[in-house]
Amino acid sequence: MDCVVFGLKEDEGLKVLLVKRLKEPFKGSWALPGGFVRPDEDESLEAAARRELKEETGVEQLFLEQLFTFGCKNRHPGDWVATVAYYALVNLEDYLVQAATDVSDASWYQLKTLPELAFDHDAIISTAYKRLKNKVRYQPIGFNLLPEKFTLPQLQNLYEVILDTNLDRRNFLRKFRKMKLLIELEESQKNVSHRPARLYRFDSRQYKNLKQAGFNFEI
Amino acid sequence: MDCVVFGLKEDEGLKVLLVKRLKEPFKGSWALPGGFVRPDEDESLEAAARRELKEETGVEQLFLEQLFTFGCKNRHPGDWVATVAYYALVNLEDYLVQAATDVSDASWYQLKTLPELAFDHDAIISTAYKRLKNKVRYQPIGFNLLPEKFTLPQLQNLYEVILDTNLDRRNFLRKFRKMKLLIELEESQKNVSHRPARLYRFDSRQYKNLKQAGFNFEI
Repeated sequence: MDCVVFGLKEDEGLKVLLVKRLKEPFKGSWALPGGFVRPDEDESLEAAARRELKEETGVEQLFLEQLFTFGCKNRHPGDWVATVAYYALVNLEDYLVQAATDVSDASWYQLKTLPELAFDHDAIISTAYKRLKNKVRYQPIGFNLLPEKFTLPQLQNLYEVILDTNLDRRNFLRKFRKMKLLIELEESQKNVSHRPARLYRFDSRQYKNLKQAGFNFEI
Repeated sequence: MDCVVFGLKEDEGLKVLLVKRLKEPFKGSWALPGGFVRPDEDESLEAAARRELKEETGVEQLFLEQLFTFGCKNRHPGDWVATVAYYALVNLEDYLVQAATDVSDASWYQLKTLPELAFDHDAIISTAYKRLKNKVRYQPIGFNLLPEKFTLPQLQNLYEVILDTNLDRRNFLRKFRKMKLLIELEESQKNVSHRPARLYRFDSRQYKNLKQAGFNFEI
């Protein structure tokens, strides 16, 4: 298993959690956190992915989704190894990253300027990023990535960072508003140098309703 | 790897290709065609899935899509075995099914009345069927499942069989027509007892255009 954990933090670009390998092959290279199933320990593939991620980076308690299984003759030197890849998108500030076990370092790298990676991990990240963008376009996300109370520019910025594109403000807000997922609060921003913007929060009950009915949404 | 091959034929329900196992575990049970990677032979997981499918059922040259990887402690008696599942939807009449190697029989079963299956293959089929329905709802399919020239009732029937539901005729046709994927022909049906219906064919160039742009489609 390998884990592609995307991390976001306001005013910074999209990042990926990488580890520095202590062992051959690719000793000293950066790679995705991951490892092999331990049949005696791991209940499932996902449990194995979580265990490896926690052991190598300290990151746990996150929503992991299965991405794709990569397996072919030449992706691992010497052996025929398949990897089940998982991915997640988290608020970077919710997690303390700490390298351990068979890695010497663990840290967040800007997706746009990744170092050279071990194995086919660049291809796995690229598949994960495509899936993430597709997901963001067809279902609302962001609940855990913004503060509890946020402004519309903050929401739009979140989407722009993930999609790596500029969105038309009117169009974006029209589509988002149609879902009735935003609750407008009585308060506005405080302590800002510009005109304070109105604050909103997500309506998680409406989110559940929409999720069951199927989001009819496209950014 | 395991393969969920859905098969369709006019006026019959959706079927699944199953094989009867000649070996333990689950000797004598029906199961999905599949098997283990042979590192010396198989270039990739998909190649291994294709090899097993061909060996056990004679079915080859079809579009296989990766579905999901199932792996947990108790899905295989005695061993910790993960399986990468693939799925496909084919025109049943395009394939000759013939059992060989480690299966004694291979045949199409109605999805609605499957026999008891080996391992967790019922859960794999159920995941595949959910994915298939989801795919059908959001992108046009059916090119290879209808005759080259078909009527609108034939097209609607195809969708109704896959989705296992009745669709509103007007709504269905309005959505389909909006994509401009249907070319109306000068001819109508021949040799039918009812009023002959107009014939259509798919516009495969338009299909390619839409695929690139993203189908904006929901049945």
